[in-house]
Amino acid sequence: MRCEVVAIGTELLLGQIVDTNSSWIGEQLALAGVDCLHQVKVGDNLDRIVAALRQALERADAVICCGGLGPTQDDLTRYAIAEVMGVDLLLDDELADRIATMFSSRGREMPANNYRQAELPEGAWAMAQQPGTAAGLVCPVGDKVIYAVPGVPAEMRPMVLGTVLVDLRHRAGEDAAVIRSRTIRTWGWAESKLAEVLDPYMEELDRTGRATVAFLASGWEGIKVRVTVKATTAEQADAVLDTEVPAVAALIGDPVFSTRDEPMEQVVLDQLAAAGLSVAVAESLTGGLVAARLTGRPGASAVMRGGVVSYASDVKFDLLEVPVGPVVTEATAAAMAEGVAQRLGADVGLATTGVAGPDELEGVAPGTVCLAVWLDGTAEAFTVRLPGDRDQVRQFAVISVLDLLRRRLARR
Amino acid sequence: MRCEVVAIGTELLLGQIVDTNSSWIGEQLALAGVDCLHQVKVGDNLDRIVAALRQALERADAVICCGGLGPTQDDLTRYAIAEVMGVDLLLDDELADRIATMFSSRGREMPANNYRQAELPEGAWAMAQQPGTAAGLVCPVGDKVIYAVPGVPAEMRPMVLGTVLVDLRHRAGEDAAVIRSRTIRTWGWAESKLAEVLDPYMEELDRTGRATVAFLASGWEGIKVRVTVKATTAEQADAVLDTEVPAVAALIGDPVFSTRDEPMEQVVLDQLAAAGLSVAVAESLTGGLVAARLTGRPGASAVMRGGVVSYASDVKFDLLEVPVGPVVTEATAAAMAEGVAQRLGADVGLATTGVAGPDELEGVAPGTVCLAVWLDGTAEAFTVRLPGDRDQVRQFAVISVLDLLRRRLARR
Repeated sequence: MRCEVVAIGTELLLGQIVDTNSSWIGEQLALAGVDCLHQVKVGDNLDRIVAALRQALERADAVICCGGLGPTQDDLTRYAIAEVMGVDLLLDDELADRIATMFSSRGREMPANNYRQAELPEGAWAMAQQPGTAAGLVCPVGDKVIYAVPGVPAEMRPMVLGTVLVDLRHRAGEDAAVIRSRTIRTWGWAESKLAEVLDPYMEELDRTGRATVAFLASGWEGIKVRVTVKATTAEQADAVLDTEVPAVAALIGDPVFSTRDEPMEQVVLDQLAAAGLSVAVAESLTGGLVAARLTGRPGASAVMRGGVVSYASDVKFDLLEVPVGPVVTEATAAAMAEGVAQRLGADVGLATTGVAGPDELEGVAPGTVCLAVWLDGTAEAFTVRLPGDRDQVRQFAVISVLDLLRRRLARR
Repeated sequence: MRCEVVAIGTELLLGQIVDTNSSWIGEQLALAGVDCLHQVKVGDNLDRIVAALRQALERADAVICCGGLGPTQDDLTRYAIAEVMGVDLLLDDELADRIATMFSSRGREMPANNYRQAELPEGAWAMAQQPGTAAGLVCPVGDKVIYAVPGVPAEMRPMVLGTVLVDLRHRAGEDAAVIRSRTIRTWGWAESKLAEVLDPYMEELDRTGRATVAFLASGWEGIKVRVTVKATTAEQADAVLDTEVPAVAALIGDPVFSTRDEPMEQVVLDQLAAAGLSVAVAESLTGGLVAARLTGRPGASAVMRGGVVSYASDVKFDLLEVPVGPVVTEATAAAMAEGVAQRLGADVGLATTGVAGPDELEGVAPGTVCLAVWLDGTAEAFTVRLPGDRDQVRQFAVISVLDLLRRRLARR
């Protein structure tokens, strides 16, 4: 079963809004085992909408078109579908009543424009779910189908979940495949290194059709390795994943920080909680980002004491008791980590100092970052060279120092 | 001049990442006066990428394809373009050197896989801008062109701005219509309030065709008001904007914090620098986000001393000398702001304390936030009720406390 998505609206092409609807629909289709091979954005132009729908219907069994169901002149979806179906639009009295009631229940009169929203292509029907004035439409075209849903996410979602997916499952019959994915998160290897290590295994998976593996570099979320399985039932898919995910994780080894798609900060918060340790953070170039990530998780207060952003050098010297001297050194990072742990009464201290750029500092090049973890009376400090612009250097420094803590706690 | 966008990546169709690149590219094309009538997403499949590129080339003069330029097996863009061009791939020695140098400068060896990234379709050339290992490609196809750019936004954007738009303008010749926009940033009013206030003005603009005004709610970036003008030359467009932007800003008044699309933190950093004042931040529920936003701007070190993340209550009492007691109060926020300014030797202190959720704290409901600014020996504190989940409450608290400082400095 194949289903394409056509998102309608000139504002999408102009970048005035990001098309999150197609992404969400794509995810729902994947979870339901429906293949979605193309997604298209087209503006508010009748001919182009008709052409996009026709092409999508040629390539797939079903099309979900999203947007253009409002009451204004530039809402053309219903007219385009009628043209594709080769039928006229008819006023649906029941639907007109439903919309008029929505207006009157809010104490407002229904503008004449909204009668357009009660017009249906002959042979189509309105979906039961209707949170707003725009009705979702089910429009059979031969043995295929076009579903039209509004572009407002809160109106679209219940229609897709309640009507579209149910109807697609019904059309697919009994032997619909289920697609399930799990995501392994890694930090420390480039994507190409991951690919090289997994290459023989991926070739074998390819040959047997047991599963597929894909990589996704996600900035300071790490590089994600997604294992996807297609099976007849959810139970079968889960059983294959229960074997394949640990196998892939074992091949990668130490860079794996989660086999359950958890962010790095959640992993270290869980490690700290399990070990009964509290943490404090001293930040220079990251300027609060490490603390912000840790405190972004509900329940962080169980282990997080707080932090010091020692952006000016003398704040490092005065508040963290770092010896006066150059600040982008491993010795400074180590002293910051110890200083913040002692100052805030934490068991663990983390520290970042370095050059985010664009300019160099103390003769040190942008991208040079010193990181430290202080724990059990000992600080360990490292220097890394991070790629990218100011923002990327800061973000990579955050995940790097958290990863340092993860490895240190794992060894403990 | 017409240009289509083809976004490549199975993860886009599966909804694992939202395709923000196409939106951004669409915006740049609109600003450059280039029509973009279709945007397409296609998975990592050679035949389908080839078909998508061919169709896009039929409909338009130029195609920007985004993604699939990495070093792994599922990066197929360069192969698809070579097929469309009807040529072979050739190893470009200069490009191979460039990539190898990137690895060696980070003290790493280049994996064999990355040599793929130095292969170019015969007749294509690499773009000058290359922040990462993936080169952008300019690929002539008859009198049309395919541009290939990587999917990582920080790598893609300089290539589009530095090569693609320049080349498109060159191809379009002299008589292209120019579309120019400027963005006014606001904080404090809902979108509906902005629309109400600007309604008569927008109707007049509509009638005269002088300009258009659009709203875009952008979370903790504020609500953006975009004024767009279409003209024959850039000079004509700029002249209209020079009149209309101040007129729109004057109608809105105090909620306008920038008429040049600057983020709030840049505005307050500039105010502080102009007044010769330094700043320090004490954060509880925002957990480092205020400091991280301020230090995210190059040049922040001129005014930013640093901050204290006082997540645990006793860090507030001990380090910031806040009187012991309930912590979600205006008095606590005021004491935090004064405490951090004095502790870090800053002229201005900012503070946030509150309940991010999901649970209540000290019997106070999630979304309740106390904010304070300390300056010239006096603290001003306010309580706000912010909507949304934990993440949104934290982000709105950040822009709210910065806005408090902006208004205080403006009154000074």
